[in-house]
Amino acid sequence: MPTFDLIVRGGSVATAVDVMRADIAIADGKVAAIGHDLGDARAVVDAGGRLVTPGGVDSHCHIEQLSAMGVTNADTFETATASAALGGTTTVIPFACQHKGDDLSAIVRDYHALAGRGAIVDYALHLIVTDPTPATLTEQLPALVKAGHGSIKIFMTYDAMKVDDEQVLDILLVARQLGAMVCAHAENHGMIKWMVQRLLDRGYTAPKYHAVSHPRGSEAEAFNRLIAMSELIDQPIMIFHVSTAEGAATIHAARGRGVKVFAETCPQYLFLTAEDLDKPGMEGAKWCCSPPPRAASDIEALWQALARGDLQTVTSDHAPFSYDEKGKFANGPNPTFKQIPNGMPGLQARMPLMFDAIVSQGRMDVTDFVRITATAPAQLYNLADRKGSIAISKDADLVVWDTEREVTLTDDLMADATGYTPYVGRTVKGWPETVVRRGEVIVADGALTGRAGSGEFLPRGGGKAAEPTGRTAAEFDPARNFGAVLL
Amino acid sequence: MPTFDLIVRGGSVATAVDVMRADIAIADGKVAAIGHDLGDARAVVDAGGRLVTPGGVDSHCHIEQLSAMGVTNADTFETATASAALGGTTTVIPFACQHKGDDLSAIVRDYHALAGRGAIVDYALHLIVTDPTPATLTEQLPALVKAGHGSIKIFMTYDAMKVDDEQVLDILLVARQLGAMVCAHAENHGMIKWMVQRLLDRGYTAPKYHAVSHPRGSEAEAFNRLIAMSELIDQPIMIFHVSTAEGAATIHAARGRGVKVFAETCPQYLFLTAEDLDKPGMEGAKWCCSPPPRAASDIEALWQALARGDLQTVTSDHAPFSYDEKGKFANGPNPTFKQIPNGMPGLQARMPLMFDAIVSQGRMDVTDFVRITATAPAQLYNLADRKGSIAISKDADLVVWDTEREVTLTDDLMADATGYTPYVGRTVKGWPETVVRRGEVIVADGALTGRAGSGEFLPRGGGKAAEPTGRTAAEFDPARNFGAVLL
Amino acid sequence: MPTFDLIVRGGSVATAVDVMRADIAIADGKVAAIGHDLGDARAVVDAGGRLVTPGGVDSHCHIEQLSAMGVTNADTFETATASAALGGTTTVIPFACQHKGDDLSAIVRDYHALAGRGAIVDYALHLIVTDPTPATLTEQLPALVKAGHGSIKIFMTYDAMKVDDEQVLDILLVARQLGAMVCAHAENHGMIKWMVQRLLDRGYTAPKYHAVSHPRGSEAEAFNRLIAMSELIDQPIMIFHVSTAEGAATIHAARGRGVKVFAETCPQYLFLTAEDLDKPGMEGAKWCCSPPPRAASDIEALWQALARGDLQTVTSDHAPFSYDEKGKFANGPNPTFKQIPNGMPGLQARMPLMFDAIVSQGRMDVTDFVRITATAPAQLYNLADRKGSIAISKDADLVVWDTEREVTLTDDLMADATGYTPYVGRTVKGWPETVVRRGEVIVADGALTGRAGSGEFLPRGGGKAAEPTGRTAAEFDPARNFGAVLL
Amino acid sequence: MPTFDLIVRGGSVATAVDVMRADIAIADGKVAAIGHDLGDARAVVDAGGRLVTPGGVDSHCHIEQLSAMGVTNADTFETATASAALGGTTTVIPFACQHKGDDLSAIVRDYHALAGRGAIVDYALHLIVTDPTPATLTEQLPALVKAGHGSIKIFMTYDAMKVDDEQVLDILLVARQLGAMVCAHAENHGMIKWMVQRLLDRGYTAPKYHAVSHPRGSEAEAFNRLIAMSELIDQPIMIFHVSTAEGAATIHAARGRGVKVFAETCPQYLFLTAEDLDKPGMEGAKWCCSPPPRAASDIEALWQALARGDLQTVTSDHAPFSYDEKGKFANGPNPTFKQIPNGMPGLQARMPLMFDAIVSQGRMDVTDFVRITATAPAQLYNLADRKGSIAISKDADLVVWDTEREVTLTDDLMADATGYTPYVGRTVKGWPETVVRRGEVIVADGALTGRAGSGEFLPRGGGKAAEPTGRTAAEFDPARNFGAVLL
Repeated sequence: MPTFDLIVRGGSVATAVDVMRADIAIADGKVAAIGHDLGDARAVVDAGGRLVTPGGVDSHCHIEQLSAMGVTNADTFETATASAALGGTTTVIPFACQHKGDDLSAIVRDYHALAGRGAIVDYALHLIVTDPTPATLTEQLPALVKAGHGSIKIFMTYDAMKVDDEQVLDILLVARQLGAMVCAHAENHGMIKWMVQRLLDRGYTAPKYHAVSHPRGSEAEAFNRLIAMSELIDQPIMIFHVSTAEGAATIHAARGRGVKVFAETCPQYLFLTAEDLDKPGMEGAKWCCSPPPRAASDIEALWQALARGDLQTVTSDHAPFSYDEKGKFANGPNPTFKQIPNGMPGLQARMPLMFDAIVSQGRMDVTDFVRITATAPAQLYNLADRKGSIAISKDADLVVWDTEREVTLTDDLMADATGYTPYVGRTVKGWPETVVRRGEVIVADGALTGRAGSGEFLPRGGGKAAEPTGRTAAEFDPARNFGAVLL
Repeated sequence: MPTFDLIVRGGSVATAVDVMRADIAIADGKVAAIGHDLGDARAVVDAGGRLVTPGGVDSHCHIEQLSAMGVTNADTFETATASAALGGTTTVIPFACQHKGDDLSAIVRDYHALAGRGAIVDYALHLIVTDPTPATLTEQLPALVKAGHGSIKIFMTYDAMKVDDEQVLDILLVARQLGAMVCAHAENHGMIKWMVQRLLDRGYTAPKYHAVSHPRGSEAEAFNRLIAMSELIDQPIMIFHVSTAEGAATIHAARGRGVKVFAETCPQYLFLTAEDLDKPGMEGAKWCCSPPPRAASDIEALWQALARGDLQTVTSDHAPFSYDEKGKFANGPNPTFKQIPNGMPGLQARMPLMFDAIVSQGRMDVTDFVRITATAPAQLYNLADRKGSIAISKDADLVVWDTEREVTLTDDLMADATGYTPYVGRTVKGWPETVVRRGEVIVADGALTGRAGSGEFLPRGGGKAAEPTGRTAAEFDPARNFGAVLL
Repeated sequence: MPTFDLIVRGGSVATAVDVMRADIAIADGKVAAIGHDLGDARAVVDAGGRLVTPGGVDSHCHIEQLSAMGVTNADTFETATASAALGGTTTVIPFACQHKGDDLSAIVRDYHALAGRGAIVDYALHLIVTDPTPATLTEQLPALVKAGHGSIKIFMTYDAMKVDDEQVLDILLVARQLGAMVCAHAENHGMIKWMVQRLLDRGYTAPKYHAVSHPRGSEAEAFNRLIAMSELIDQPIMIFHVSTAEGAATIHAARGRGVKVFAETCPQYLFLTAEDLDKPGMEGAKWCCSPPPRAASDIEALWQALARGDLQTVTSDHAPFSYDEKGKFANGPNPTFKQIPNGMPGLQARMPLMFDAIVSQGRMDVTDFVRITATAPAQLYNLADRKGSIAISKDADLVVWDTEREVTLTDDLMADATGYTPYVGRTVKGWPETVVRRGEVIVADGALTGRAGSGEFLPRGGGKAAEPTGRTAAEFDPARNFGAVLL
Repeated sequence: MPTFDLIVRGGSVATAVDVMRADIAIADGKVAAIGHDLGDARAVVDAGGRLVTPGGVDSHCHIEQLSAMGVTNADTFETATASAALGGTTTVIPFACQHKGDDLSAIVRDYHALAGRGAIVDYALHLIVTDPTPATLTEQLPALVKAGHGSIKIFMTYDAMKVDDEQVLDILLVARQLGAMVCAHAENHGMIKWMVQRLLDRGYTAPKYHAVSHPRGSEAEAFNRLIAMSELIDQPIMIFHVSTAEGAATIHAARGRGVKVFAETCPQYLFLTAEDLDKPGMEGAKWCCSPPPRAASDIEALWQALARGDLQTVTSDHAPFSYDEKGKFANGPNPTFKQIPNGMPGLQARMPLMFDAIVSQGRMDVTDFVRITATAPAQLYNLADRKGSIAISKDADLVVWDTEREVTLTDDLMADATGYTPYVGRTVKGWPETVVRRGEVIVADGALTGRAGSGEFLPRGGGKAAEPTGRTAAEFDPARNFGAVLL
């Protein structure tokens, strides 16, 4: 009979499928046993009366990243992952971001160094490709995917970041050959640029006009275009931050005809609307993110899309810019909405907001909460052998929730370096009391105990989600295209 | 440190979410612990090199039931559940079938008696309502649902069974009030009757014409009609045995606009086509079931609908009629296709067929196999507190699969009393070696060890799946209908 | 150079395609020439500054008909066609209505006699089939269609009138064999009956609850079902009185996949809403028709469906019941909404309402007005060789519009025998000044000059619109159904 | 009683609505009267036993135009319009094509000069805008639209021609302000370029690979994108040369939700398939046009879309390149498919091909033939006051068809300067015997009699079709966008 390193005792343990009263015994950072009367341990977390869920997986967050607008995130890996941990997230997937001209391998090395030094929770990296040169496509990506970076992100908008349709196709094909997932920020660039110009020309410069500057049709359009390219290549895609009902409907239709398209949304599209940008003075700058929050009817549509599985996960899209001259005002004290760096913090608030909505308010089941915040992203990004669930031999990443505790979100409560939260003033019920990462208590009684640099890199290939469907487009079928072998 | 009743040792354990190398310790019929080095047990099943999944849940099967055509099933609860057990299924939901004029409560008593005497696996009962009299609706159904029969089945076709649209609405509303699920055999009765008559009038009487007699459009039509009524009442529905691509598309569209509609298909629609009815002489009678198997393109569409979740489970629709004068030929030695009792056996073949297709041939993951055959039906029918997964304190219902064993299905291999299998000659890879039900080994080394009468009744309400969405139809909204309070 | 019987001189002449300044010369009741300087005539209508359109074709109106509820229409053919003429309609297609047990041939004879005696405008007859006995289907319908009654109407609701799905299929097939069009009142009978009962049980008996008693989903459901049957048989259908956005969308989808489905709406669905039923006392009874007027959003959807051609014509569905004990109160002075005969007058108001909306208010072009009110119904019902346009050798049926005259609709203004108009108080711009039917001035300066009995019967087969598409359903394709020849 | 200039006597005269036996009297180039016994004329065309239709309107053809690939069309206005006339077309709308850097006004002047010198039939001009500079948008376009060029064409593909999405929006908005129609060649540029490169890289250079190089998904994608932009601006659009079923379905869906989108297809998509490019040697070059002909199933889908009105007209997209070093081989004797100028002749074959399919083979009615080939394009491009129909005071543009004559199309039969016809060897029934343009016989007994330079320019604004729907996008609604006034 072994003596375990740690036992989380007496909690109600939830996976994406089951809820059970059970102890969880941990050895060597892994779950060793689940059940009753498991024996002794060197340490015990008393989870009596508590709910225990897998540690959250936040598969979309920007950390220590130079933004599209040349402004650096407020956070370091340390501050960002501290806030993640405090919010119940034990795995993050930020980005290694290639800007035009960058050597992607060097970029990855740099982010590795930053993350290795600062991360408190475990991490993988998405590769942002903005400059798909032959070297990037044929040398660096193969090597990097092989080294465990099984997902590539592209932007279809932002002057500094966007790839055009030919480049999208190049990247989709390389991803298919490498077995990597392709994630996308999909908005129609031209519609946005055109609307921005129109607003600025007429003097509509206040932050709230940011919400007007992204026409809602620009989302579904770009989704449809990306899906068309995905169908041509038969390469699965993950559509980031769905914000509109029409966008969700486009995904629903594509899935209905067998396209392998996955999608996420974010708390800002489930809890905020464009009205939130309508604040006095420059205050609305805090709520400027892209796509912008939309309307109440979109919120309802997105919850339904989550419920039926057209959206699989909710991520933070944490993109922290401080409300000062280093962040939102880096372009001057009185920026137009276009000069305000896009993004808002969310690593810490994501899990409590979702817990409150799904579990406390009863929108769905606790198993759905687990699926959406942890299991699904772990599966989508091929981390499921270690992350996203509570199962034997998987990493012992756990959150012990005080389901009765009500917390009002304040700027001060947030441990990231942004200095504000867009959810300020909102009260949530349910709070992460204890957080365990690979068997180590990194949050105890709501306070951080984990150390910077203790997070581990999680190498992974594209995995199952990234596999093609096998339904070749007509253009690639030699029998239908005069014998041409094109794949 | 306890001594367990049984340990299943060394297997690869799969839930709908996780796959893990772990032992499973069982006490008092429940899973007590999962993990490594769990201690001693009075008995051990060696699952080394084996896959262990939850016992199957077959939520649609007919046992000892008088058919719509007045012919009794070949099976007793004993033979039927013996075949279920041998196929890896540990929970069944057959029907208590009210025929017109029947007292539903008495019917349920009778089935209880039969099941209590014969069942080897655990069981719940769906209530078939064909005669929704006031007494049935306002007295018997409330009492029966309260007594643990949380699902009602209706037929939209078969002269002897069908309820008309008004009756469907009555039943949907009662179900909503009682919190019960409503399941439906949804085909357009008139289109079928009309086509049957046309075929018979022209002398097309051979079994294969059964496939022609159910126009494929009769399915999507009835789905659409049922969904329209479900939307009016805001009562969730479960659509049984989807067979056509158009049927699946109708469900996809309804789910996309937020209707709470669930659906299943069956092996006969995933592995057979109408061509299978085209056999010499009366042989095709064995393949006569309703709806009939369709085309290869439908098979592909149904697998896709399963993959994206529009269909949640695969059931057997086991409806066993012997190929003799007590079954398929009860109406004479040379019946027209219309005189042949509808149905085919499937309790035993369901799990091996699905295992072969999903796991061995790789159509999806083993976690999908578990979800589709066990977890989802347990959730849909509110059995998830005990069934459908492998989790602490849940019933220890387990199947140990020899994943390498190849078995050719033969009539003799089947333990039910039908005498034939529609899948004869098909070879599957993967076979249930050991089956455990509430901690008791009921199949050992592929041979039955469970006893008749050891199966337990599983009382349950309608549960979460049966809850309305809360989106009231305009007609029930006093603010939009001149103040009328109609619900 | 001939001397014509009549010249309509100096008007702006509109067809469904063209608008032109031209004289119209008439000889022997036919248009003999169109153009300038056509010569002399025995009579002249001065149309200077006026608009001249084809006489209206109202292809859906009930005249001297015993209603589904056993109440006889207020009108005789004389009063009804007087009002038609005054409104600019020169052709009507009322019904010869078979009630259960009736001999359809005898019924047609009766209506012929009534019409022959009273009609002021020309007429054809739709055959209402409520009792599709073998004699009706195989003897009477063939003879009647051959005799020039090329369209059959069915009801999918009303206890006294409805045919079930099998009967619908029988009728569709007979129509296909005879080359006749099938028109349908398509609402889900069960949903309506169920809702009616629910309302009455709770004491909601006022006229306005009639609008609640027809759930809006009952329309799209019945459309979808009828379309499914039409697809099976490959028999074109005409869907009467579309009232909901969902209904129009169902038709749009069916047309998009190649189904030959035509459809109409009526002024009551383009100009009225359910709110119009909300009147003090029993006043709302005047607005009780089926389906009921719906919502403002439906109105907009129907106009769009008209514009894009999913709906082809607007008919009156004139169903006149006087607001007294012979009509709306035939079942007593205080009827529940269910006891109120369904229907409202519209023969006279249809053309002025549509003229005002389309031409005066500019919703569409005058050519669209002509197409919707005259040309399209003439084509759909195979009257285009004589009716619906202004062309050489066609019947000289003309309306001379005073486009500037504003008229407020009042009960007194209406020449039919109903005694009220549901459009009372509405002011329209544009009014029929002179109406010519086969060269005879039947309305002069807004006053009736035509005589009862001068209207002619218009025999016609089903024509082009009624021809099948040639796309046989799978069930009828011997190559796909084991050789069965079913058509 | 006047003496007319010309009478076309005894024919069966068809408009888009009517077919009538009538004489047509012409004075001063206009139709003066239609009917019987109209009087005398200085000249008579005997149309006894013949069908008389309006002269064709071919609203999409390239004449004397420098192609996207720098090769000039084979035709002059004289040869092109000679072939048009011989095929029964009396109005053409070719393009005034701005290449990058061009002054659009100067370009229009040049085309005017060319057309004025050579045209045998009447003409209007579409303005191709490839370089939407401020001067083009704010100075030249307003002046040119005012001068009677009420339609603008854009390309979404071809390196030398394409405008990007921002430019599309600029042009749509200018068009809205000017009341002009916007026509588009809509294919996804990136998908095509990418596929071209892939083919060339693998040595697939033969002409037939042109068909592979335009992925079918590139069409529906671009349609969807253009429609999204059209919806944003609320500016009607005309989509050129629809070639795929998915493209037609995209248009159907957009029209169903109220977008004002019009569309055409061409004979090459109704009569040819990709297989036609599969010829020995370079012969396939003759069939290289963009988009390429597709599959048999697309042909069927396009005919259905025509029948239901989602496509309104069929144009030639005449783009004549000789099969020699001045045309198809301008880039060398052995070009890759990408070096072959895109386009095929069609001005002469369009009407006979459509007549044969619609009238002789009975696909639709002769009125549909008139609508599709003459009336609809005249209406869409605001020429209906003079062209597209046979009506009093309209231009006397007539075609007298010998409906029984069978003609096998040969290269020699074609009067344009291309030297070949892609329909070579095809036999059509029905042939233009006499063609009258503004009262002048320009084709007599199948031989050209019209003179170069006799064609007139037809100035026109955008007209009704180009008017916005009035449904403002949310972004332009001050009430929904924080008060911003953006239109």
